[in-house]
Amino acid sequence: MPDNGVDVSTWFNGQPGDRLSVFDRGLAYGDGVFETIRITPQGPVLLDFHLQRMRKGLDRLGIDCHWDSLEAEIRAYPGLRQPAVVKVVCTRGVGGRGYATSQVQGPTRVISTHPLPQYPQHYAARGVSIFSCRQRLSINPTLAGIKHLNRLEQVLARQEWDSDDYQEGLMLDSLGRVVEGVFSNLFLVRGGRVITPNLEQAGVEGVMRRWLLDQFASQGVSTHVGQITLQDIQLADEWFFCNSVYGVWPVRQWENRTWAVGDMAGRAQQWVMDHWQF
Amino acid sequence: MPDNGVDVSTWFNGQPGDRLSVFDRGLAYGDGVFETIRITPQGPVLLDFHLQRMRKGLDRLGIDCHWDSLEAEIRAYPGLRQPAVVKVVCTRGVGGRGYATSQVQGPTRVISTHPLPQYPQHYAARGVSIFSCRQRLSINPTLAGIKHLNRLEQVLARQEWDSDDYQEGLMLDSLGRVVEGVFSNLFLVRGGRVITPNLEQAGVEGVMRRWLLDQFASQGVSTHVGQITLQDIQLADEWFFCNSVYGVWPVRQWENRTWAVGDMAGRAQQWVMDHWQF
Repeated sequence: MPDNGVDVSTWFNGQPGDRLSVFDRGLAYGDGVFETIRITPQGPVLLDFHLQRMRKGLDRLGIDCHWDSLEAEIRAYPGLRQPAVVKVVCTRGVGGRGYATSQVQGPTRVISTHPLPQYPQHYAARGVSIFSCRQRLSINPTLAGIKHLNRLEQVLARQEWDSDDYQEGLMLDSLGRVVEGVFSNLFLVRGGRVITPNLEQAGVEGVMRRWLLDQFASQGVSTHVGQITLQDIQLADEWFFCNSVYGVWPVRQWENRTWAVGDMAGRAQQWVMDHWQF
Repeated sequence: MPDNGVDVSTWFNGQPGDRLSVFDRGLAYGDGVFETIRITPQGPVLLDFHLQRMRKGLDRLGIDCHWDSLEAEIRAYPGLRQPAVVKVVCTRGVGGRGYATSQVQGPTRVISTHPLPQYPQHYAARGVSIFSCRQRLSINPTLAGIKHLNRLEQVLARQEWDSDDYQEGLMLDSLGRVVEGVFSNLFLVRGGRVITPNLEQAGVEGVMRRWLLDQFASQGVSTHVGQITLQDIQLADEWFFCNSVYGVWPVRQWENRTWAVGDMAGRAQQWVMDHWQF
């Protein structure tokens, strides 16, 4: 059994292997992208959305990834066929010192399988408590939306709490606008309308966020992608976090307010459950 | 000969080796720092300043690096004793999936030797031409100053030009303030006063910048660390870039202006030459 605690081998450039060159630009500069894919008994969750985001990220970074063979490699990975979490990393490849990319040999691909996270069932059923992170998300329109490997802001934010009292952290951008959680996106509801932050300047466009936006719209719920302030959260009828690994977590408590599990979070959870056994 | 083109072995965690785990957080999140040290016949350039910045960066990221043994390991590396460029990378180490750091085993250290860059001598003698990068540096006071592994902004900026017409690129922060070059710091001179951008919100505090600030001050030159605009550059009597690998490059041309090699750049180059044979 590999040291990641599951019985599917890690793939390095399409072959079993779990070591890479110390000269890889993924290490040197975080020069690459990744995806974290939940595998359920019904198969991978939103695999096409994950692949689309990865391709968009590689394009944005100018990484020539030979997309068709990368996609074929991911789809052939045995880990996609048993419940687990599969992580795919694609970097620009191996190169010399210096930021210039002209001499880089790549891309480098790593696909690995990880145990399912063991979140208590009450996070989804009764809601979660949210920490307010001091670490801000910096504004960078080129990097916003994509899931690149420059993740120090999330690492620093996640270090701010270490108790089980909080299940997620709320992150603002450097101008104080609400963006997302440390490892999730968020929605809030007011007057029957579902609102989620615009991610054109900071944040990651989560695949579950994208899917839920589609679901709400197709069910006739009014949706809005826009600017959200802390005041908007205080005034929300309900709010919830989502990602494709855990699904939907309603917020029970944040700062000096509590919320009951709301109708929209319940509907979102039901849609998820109608598709996948998480 | 290792594949980095020089005859000193790469060290991985204190032993010869050039592969690391794909589960290293340096790859996953850029969760670490690095230094690039020029080795001259007179020894490493500003080694103590490099070590101080690395330690500061590790502290800032909350990486427990067992500093004394890390410093001893770096000082014992054979590559420090022959002209070359030595790169030191220190990451938080190997951990599972997810941003939390509590289960990480580390730190991971990589020390490698690289060929000396072959810059034409006229860059220093007659000056360089500067590209204006569109990519901005995002504002993040926690990450500013240190040399962390989240370097996508530099990678994207360096991709903006590929001709030999430009030797360095000028980078602004997201508010339009002048910060640094893609791989250098900068100074400008006006009315006999030497000015360099404040790096408390963005940028890397270069060791050569630090040393030159000390040199200017000790030679009675008025120095100022503050906010610099594009207008300030247009009005500069001279300006120059510096780093510890190439020393000092006066600016010959930028946008619609040209400059002669200035007196302050010449003095800075002389101080460098008095210490090290670059």
